Amino acid sequence: MQILAKKYTLRFNQTFRIAAGSRNTTETVLLSLSHNKIIAYGQASLPPYLTENAESVLAYIKCVDGKLLEQMDYPHAVAYISQLKENNYAAKAALNMALADWHAKQKQIPVYKLLNLSAPSCKTAFTISIGNYDETLNEIKKHAPSHLLKIKMGSHFDDEMLRAISEARHPNFFVDVNAGWKSYQEAYDKTNRLYEAGCILIEQPLPVNMIEETALLKETSPLCIVADESVKTSADVERLKNVFSGINIKLMKCGSFQEAIAMSHLAKKYNMQVLLGSMAESTLAVTATTHLASIAEWHDLDAPLMIQNDPFDGIMYTENSVTLPPISGIGATPNLLFPF
Amino acid sequence: MQILAKKYTLRFNQTFRIAAGSRNTTETVLLSLSHNKIIAYGQASLPPYLTENAESVLAYIKCVDGKLLEQMDYPHAVAYISQLKENNYAAKAALNMALADWHAKQKQIPVYKLLNLSAPSCKTAFTISIGNYDETLNEIKKHAPSHLLKIKMGSHFDDEMLRAISEARHPNFFVDVNAGWKSYQEAYDKTNRLYEAGCILIEQPLPVNMIEETALLKETSPLCIVADESVKTSADVERLKNVFSGINIKLMKCGSFQEAIAMSHLAKKYNMQVLLGSMAESTLAVTATTHLASIAEWHDLDAPLMIQNDPFDGIMYTENSVTLPPISGIGATPNLLFPF
Repeated sequence: MQILAKKYTLRFNQTFRIAAGSRNTTETVLLSLSHNKIIAYGQASLPPYLTENAESVLAYIKCVDGKLLEQMDYPHAVAYISQLKENNYAAKAALNMALADWHAKQKQIPVYKLLNLSAPSCKTAFTISIGNYDETLNEIKKHAPSHLLKIKMGSHFDDEMLRAISEARHPNFFVDVNAGWKSYQEAYDKTNRLYEAGCILIEQPLPVNMIEETALLKETSPLCIVADESVKTSADVERLKNVFSGINIKLMKCGSFQEAIAMSHLAKKYNMQVLLGSMAESTLAVTATTHLASIAEWHDLDAPLMIQNDPFDGIMYTENSVTLPPISGIGATPNLLFPF
Repeated sequence: MQILAKKYTLRFNQTFRIAAGSRNTTETVLLSLSHNKIIAYGQASLPPYLTENAESVLAYIKCVDGKLLEQMDYPHAVAYISQLKENNYAAKAALNMALADWHAKQKQIPVYKLLNLSAPSCKTAFTISIGNYDETLNEIKKHAPSHLLKIKMGSHFDDEMLRAISEARHPNFFVDVNAGWKSYQEAYDKTNRLYEAGCILIEQPLPVNMIEETALLKETSPLCIVADESVKTSADVERLKNVFSGINIKLMKCGSFQEAIAMSHLAKKYNMQVLLGSMAESTLAVTATTHLASIAEWHDLDAPLMIQNDPFDGIMYTENSVTLPPISGIGATPNLLFPF
């Protein structure tokens, strides 16, 4: 298999503000796997708060033996790339994605069938990033009541945003704090105000190291407390089963479709809710993630709507549902902005 | 039929420079037609060089009797909106588009079947806007030799761009001057240099009023000279049959699928080539235009790739081909950025 990889900078439609800081771009690596006239694609997304970066992804990919890969069946190929080096989750996710794309295309089936999953059928949340009172109220009002909103919090705008959220009375939203609250008391107070405003769940209210405070919040809060920054793989689910009431699964964090599925089984065992998420990614990686829709109760797949130079076409957003194109593989096709 | 219309500003990924000036946005009007649980969509695009604007489109739409429209079959409805007022081509295009979407959805067929046309199968040109030597060379080099490029010219950058075009030796391109050359001699000289660099056609080299100079250029130039700003409807094709060797057909200029088809018949009669074009439009209007692909030799359907807040999903760009989703109607579905 010929492996080509290239850096590609995704540009946001507008400055993206979350608790971890604001930015206008996200570095990614796009890769293609080609063999026997089948071309398959994968993407690693590398926001600045990850330990991986484009160089580490390209270095990982250089270690992969394409000749070896083409002699392996799908399960062996998956195991080979996952065991090749430790960590490197985003790099592995890109390659795992492309491998699934290649093998599903070769079998002329969609990726969810290759993974023995049901056909995806889901609605996505739509992200509202951090803003002041007017910006937040305006953004919430722009969306139909039927749209599930994911509102970013965790900054000095929280009080303004809380007032706007209460004022808007949107019936269907959750809040992602990105570890932005700094104490149990702050989290407890804000969580209760959000509950009164109709919020259904809170993602990562507290920093990763505040495990006891998070466990206490889980006990005392009326809302489902979902781990994002705290959880990468199955080992973390096991470790945090009494700390959070749900987990956010992302391919970039766990490194493969297979690990994502394993995490969802574990979550079920521990009665935890599952949110299927994405980072700043193009249509390629989000379409890939959509094949996992049946493993989750909640879906956060709107990343491509925030990107102004998306090099792939794929899932379609109809009202708040996502739909896969009826083609084999991941179902994402490079468009004229594709940099190879 | 309930008709809803709303202004929507398309934002470009980057400043769009053509001979008529540079800009970052284009005003449009999005409209929906709903009746019997079928919702259909249309879009008018209103670049600043047109006489229509968002207000004139909204005023036209206010005159349309939705109740009357729902009692009419498709041909009568088409005739009714086209004869309701003079001119208002972009407004009529939006409504004509939505009517075709509605009637095709009701019959559960794609729009090209409603229009008795063959299934679209085409490659689109990709636009390179005006730039200096380095920008132009860089943009051309970014695209595979198989991509048809449409290079915008007609400014004080022409000499730099001509050098870059010759240097790049891209095998597959045409040039759109947007009426930016000011004399027969300038057009003659630049056309010959472009011919030597491999150019296959020139769009609108001279201003609309320079009819004799254009006719002379057509006689003396080795390149196909295609009318854009000079031609709106069939009457113009008739008038300019000896002045240009081809025409650019756009829904926003001619006002309906039916007039576009009539223009292509006339072009065939006069041995003129047909370019099917689009303005700054979202995926909705460009997907609608794609249903007309079989009437043209050349296709210029890349507008959505330049838009950062596209409120519709629809055609997919695979390498340089465009593909319609296999659903009825136009095949464009509103996404979460849709403003209704």
